[in-house]
Amino acid sequence: MLVNTRAVRIEWGDCDPAGIIFYPRYFALFDACTSALIERALGMTKQDYLKAYDFSGHPLVNTHSRFLVATTFGDDVTIETTVTDIRRSSFDVRHRLFKNGTLAVEGTETRVWVRGDPTNGTMRAAPLPQAVIDRLSQG
Amino acid sequence: MLVNTRAVRIEWGDCDPAGIIFYPRYFALFDACTSALIERALGMTKQDYLKAYDFSGHPLVNTHSRFLVATTFGDDVTIETTVTDIRRSSFDVRHRLFKNGTLAVEGTETRVWVRGDPTNGTMRAAPLPQAVIDRLSQG
Amino acid sequence: MLVNTRAVRIEWGDCDPAGIIFYPRYFALFDACTSALIERALGMTKQDYLKAYDFSGHPLVNTHSRFLVATTFGDDVTIETTVTDIRRSSFDVRHRLFKNGTLAVEGTETRVWVRGDPTNGTMRAAPLPQAVIDRLSQG
Amino acid sequence: MLVNTRAVRIEWGDCDPAGIIFYPRYFALFDACTSALIERALGMTKQDYLKAYDFSGHPLVNTHSRFLVATTFGDDVTIETTVTDIRRSSFDVRHRLFKNGTLAVEGTETRVWVRGDPTNGTMRAAPLPQAVIDRLSQG
Repeated sequence: MLVNTRAVRIEWGDCDPAGIIFYPRYFALFDACTSALIERALGMTKQDYLKAYDFSGHPLVNTHSRFLVATTFGDDVTIETTVTDIRRSSFDVRHRLFKNGTLAVEGTETRVWVRGDPTNGTMRAAPLPQAVIDRLSQG
Repeated sequence: MLVNTRAVRIEWGDCDPAGIIFYPRYFALFDACTSALIERALGMTKQDYLKAYDFSGHPLVNTHSRFLVATTFGDDVTIETTVTDIRRSSFDVRHRLFKNGTLAVEGTETRVWVRGDPTNGTMRAAPLPQAVIDRLSQG
Repeated sequence: MLVNTRAVRIEWGDCDPAGIIFYPRYFALFDACTSALIERALGMTKQDYLKAYDFSGHPLVNTHSRFLVATTFGDDVTIETTVTDIRRSSFDVRHRLFKNGTLAVEGTETRVWVRGDPTNGTMRAAPLPQAVIDRLSQG
Repeated sequence: MLVNTRAVRIEWGDCDPAGIIFYPRYFALFDACTSALIERALGMTKQDYLKAYDFSGHPLVNTHSRFLVATTFGDDVTIETTVTDIRRSSFDVRHRLFKNGTLAVEGTETRVWVRGDPTNGTMRAAPLPQAVIDRLSQG
């Protein structure tokens, strides 16, 4: 499977009064990493891939994370993101965040490919296009 | 076990271009709910309970969430938070977020009671004080 | 002019390693207060008023804030929001945040009433409907 | 004066239901740019410069921003940050955010050099060390 790696600086404003990252910020980083992985797989920006495949997005249905080592402002971390499974209309993503080469956070998420408007109840799971499956499955 | 309920308005700025909440915001809401539960159990503010028990906080070691129904700006939701298990130096919290009486999000988390400075590597798990265990265990 | 007042709890996750609120959070609070003021003036939710007046929103063109007293987690503050001027297609809003009755932050902003899609360059300033001007001007 | 330039990707999670950046996110970006400028001027990380000069931080006393061109997810912008004035215990910073070479946002801020604990009322303005003034004044 394709792996995308991002370098991220943890900022002062990402951190809480204990001096460590406020953990919801990890999920914002992970969400950006998932989009970056798909952008790379499909060779287009998220603005473009939403239009090209005429869908509304890939919201989460569940997520699980383990926090092993604390990070703080000034830490330069790397996040490795990969698709670990693809089904008909959903797929799994795994993020591993490393600090100085040590695994600090691991997060997995299941996302659904959706069509329709999520704000008015017409959002529905839709099959992933075969081209997307093929691209995400490439090494 | 003690249950604390909070009413929360989902705001425009909590939502993403699909018009639904950007899911990391749920974790910010959940974190505030955990603190509110402990504040209520101990009868003091977080500022005060960190001092009273001389500890650094209760960071997460893992979290798991399921997203069942999308929420959007203007939604008035309620979040029910309870401690589901208490061990020597860690405890489990469950959040259930309801939209119009329907379970929309369920999140569970394990937190550790810590002493020391998380930014310099001296942070260590510490036993929860018996008074805290007693208060959190009350119905 | 109409004044809307909101009670807000400053949360742990709103604060930075210095222990005080990370100031961008004030702008998120202010944005929610502007929407709440308009919701109250028009007697409908933001979801509804965007549809009723068929417009895209009221983005900022400028903002100016003064930070007088620091706030921290656990602070219960109140924010008074009022429209201070209305022009053909823009209006000014002032927020005053009080901590224990003392003015802690003052923010002013100019917003434009816009139509069209801000993401594709078709966003344009549009005249505020007279009904909106009337309602916002009421005391 | 020293100018520091940062390349930033605007992310999906930075944007609101109108599809454009939620403006409080600009202030989070600007805050990171101010720290990056000082880090570069002093040749050390923020963790280190807070210790080296034994102070609590450089909170804002006021900020003023103009929003000229909307940005959206996928936009790669650059932010030019410079110190525009230095006084005894405060200094002014200007950020200019460019999208495709066009000025999209301009923000100015006044920050104070402080000692003491901002959460217990002992925070006080302190003179900027001469070494800091010298470094920030370099071209």
